[in-house]
Amino acid sequence: MERVLIKDLGSVKQDKVLVKGWIHKIHNLGSVNFLQLRDKSGIVQIVIDKENLNDLRIETSIEVLGTKVFNEKAPQGIEIQAEKIKIVGKATYEMMPFEINKREINAALEVQLDNRVISLRKPKIRAIFKIQEEIEEAFRKYLKEKDFSQVHTPKIIDSSTEGGSEMFTVDYFGSRAFLAQSPQFYKQMMVGAGFERVYEIGHAYRAEPHNTWRHLSEYVSLDVEMGFIEDENDIMDVEKGFLQYLFKHLKQTCKKELEMYGIDLKDMPSIPRIPLAAAQAIILEKYDKKSPVGNLDAEGEKLFSKYVKETYNSDFVFLTQYPISKRPMYTLPHDEIEGVTRSFDLIYKGLEITTGGQRIHEYDMLIENIKKFRLNPEDFKFYTDFFQYGMPPHGGFAIGLERLTMKILDLQNIREAALLPRDLKRMTP
Amino acid sequence: MERVLIKDLGSVKQDKVLVKGWIHKIHNLGSVNFLQLRDKSGIVQIVIDKENLNDLRIETSIEVLGTKVFNEKAPQGIEIQAEKIKIVGKATYEMMPFEINKREINAALEVQLDNRVISLRKPKIRAIFKIQEEIEEAFRKYLKEKDFSQVHTPKIIDSSTEGGSEMFTVDYFGSRAFLAQSPQFYKQMMVGAGFERVYEIGHAYRAEPHNTWRHLSEYVSLDVEMGFIEDENDIMDVEKGFLQYLFKHLKQTCKKELEMYGIDLKDMPSIPRIPLAAAQAIILEKYDKKSPVGNLDAEGEKLFSKYVKETYNSDFVFLTQYPISKRPMYTLPHDEIEGVTRSFDLIYKGLEITTGGQRIHEYDMLIENIKKFRLNPEDFKFYTDFFQYGMPPHGGFAIGLERLTMKILDLQNIREAALLPRDLKRMTP
Repeated sequence: MERVLIKDLGSVKQDKVLVKGWIHKIHNLGSVNFLQLRDKSGIVQIVIDKENLNDLRIETSIEVLGTKVFNEKAPQGIEIQAEKIKIVGKATYEMMPFEINKREINAALEVQLDNRVISLRKPKIRAIFKIQEEIEEAFRKYLKEKDFSQVHTPKIIDSSTEGGSEMFTVDYFGSRAFLAQSPQFYKQMMVGAGFERVYEIGHAYRAEPHNTWRHLSEYVSLDVEMGFIEDENDIMDVEKGFLQYLFKHLKQTCKKELEMYGIDLKDMPSIPRIPLAAAQAIILEKYDKKSPVGNLDAEGEKLFSKYVKETYNSDFVFLTQYPISKRPMYTLPHDEIEGVTRSFDLIYKGLEITTGGQRIHEYDMLIENIKKFRLNPEDFKFYTDFFQYGMPPHGGFAIGLERLTMKILDLQNIREAALLPRDLKRMTP
Repeated sequence: MERVLIKDLGSVKQDKVLVKGWIHKIHNLGSVNFLQLRDKSGIVQIVIDKENLNDLRIETSIEVLGTKVFNEKAPQGIEIQAEKIKIVGKATYEMMPFEINKREINAALEVQLDNRVISLRKPKIRAIFKIQEEIEEAFRKYLKEKDFSQVHTPKIIDSSTEGGSEMFTVDYFGSRAFLAQSPQFYKQMMVGAGFERVYEIGHAYRAEPHNTWRHLSEYVSLDVEMGFIEDENDIMDVEKGFLQYLFKHLKQTCKKELEMYGIDLKDMPSIPRIPLAAAQAIILEKYDKKSPVGNLDAEGEKLFSKYVKETYNSDFVFLTQYPISKRPMYTLPHDEIEGVTRSFDLIYKGLEITTGGQRIHEYDMLIENIKKFRLNPEDFKFYTDFFQYGMPPHGGFAIGLERLTMKILDLQNIREAALLPRDLKRMTP
């Protein structure tokens, strides 16, 4: 007999059904006994005889053959009268590390992460990753419609992409290699290689030697790069278009999950684009808050988001025109405004989730800029060489998948948005 | 004016068009001059004045504003009378490393890989990656329809998943870590964590100290794991179902690309499942070829594929029931046939593209099996612990994306199916 997923119980025709899952709760009422059976798709109530209850413990994996009964009082209006219960995965634990069938898990995040297989069994926790999966789905769908190609670029690299600090080193057959902190050079290469418009969903690595609520050592980067553009506004248009598409997509595909977190995604007509210097002036004037040279700090990002929300009713804001000295050597200097670049960050609810911009595409300018940054062009030969073969104007951006997930759901710690997070102190499970 | 992709020239209404791309060929006929302009979607003929020809070199990036003209003699029946040509990306090279506008590239694979940005500009080379992208698309679509969830699991791991040999080591904040050679333990965890059915598309790493036509150090693994199964046949059913779906999908989405390689994908009604021992006996009897204990070698895989093709008219064959000693410690021993496991490989056109099987799901059996393999259960505690919480019967498989791509297109070397391959000798570009 074919298994029926709990979400499909209402729609299947037959009365006799086979369901499988984990025992979520046991209600021992003496004369009548109930189980709550949980599978990946939902929870259903099972009515069982007393003698069948003996060996059953919370979180045992079972198969239940029974008859579907409509019962107004049962959750979802359906329950199953069990005829046969078979244990397929024994529960042999002494004690659960925490309970997952109550409203909230009563354990610190670190304990939940130590016992990730248990905490993820709670539907509300697993819902985070349904959202995350649909973010990716929307990203792919939106970009594919716009003629972008998906690529996979190497994560083991010979030289450092953005300066060399904060890179993990790998012993590569006796040579020293690095784990890529970004597919930056490679996605530019793929634009030049004729794909023109590419995206990549892949791991990126940052050996940042501090533990914060917003950093992971290993995260998933949603990368975009696009050729034959006019300027950086084309790139911001793509990102804005994606976010608009995403919000619609999530409202369609993740209604239940968004409700679990009390999130109501508003339509997003536009995203303000404000030069960094203007933003710094605003938060100095309005909140008496000084910013570091050429950037906002974490507090500044929060304050400026507050201002943008009040002024433009937007959770998002593009900060543009970052100074040359604060951006990597491949960033295109602005040809009309002295000292700044055609680059941007995207701030969402007080947190930077994107860095992007237009890149230098002329070989001579690139070599000169590398020298200006007091770097040796010879070290970047594998990257600069192909700029001699008609590299078109191009630019791109990257979104941290876990950061975007966290901010959409108003989670407090980025680790909640990673199945098995890696940080300064965590390498397991 | 909005750019038109070359593939859309026939369908856009306006006569005046803006196209962008690289100069593929220049025909200087004196009185009339032609360019072939190549963008990501195709190639179109441009008619230009002589004076416009001066600065143009092969592979320069240009924008062409012109008028669409129907011309029977032009490729695709359309050409563009150029009014304005603008160079947007200069070609400053001294010499192209090889020509990409001839029928074949006249350079060794290694030279093509050294100049990957150039070789990929050839539409036939880039077509490989359109096929690869659609393999992934089919994989996701098929599995999502079957209620699988996508996951991302860590590639930086604390201990070795399958024995510790052939792993790259990483300096992780001063501790020794490894690059995962498979998401094996983690995908099992995610089944147990309530996702039940998961897939992952991610990098896997093998520090194999030899260079062959079929190995990469970094490759993309299409991983599947599924809970609440009856036995390993459920897993083979999923893989067979995927491959059937894939072939249909590729015929629909990659007609042009398959034709470039002369590939005619046949419908695939079923895939034979043959015990390894029977396969070994057949190739001994039929080809006088001895096999190593508990496996086929590369030559054996080829010979047996030949036999299966002749006997069953199938390019695929599942080899089943590998001996216990030749499979990892988590493989479920067969309960009816002594000494073998509920595992399988999938051979496609003479090459193993999959290893899979049912896993042990009972805690006590797993601990015992780890001891039988003379390993220390304490070393696997992060993995074994969660088997105490009702782990259901489960199994899965993995397909090497580059191997599958290579075999579908009859490529001779797996490096052709990787954008930027990594092997014993290659870390760049």
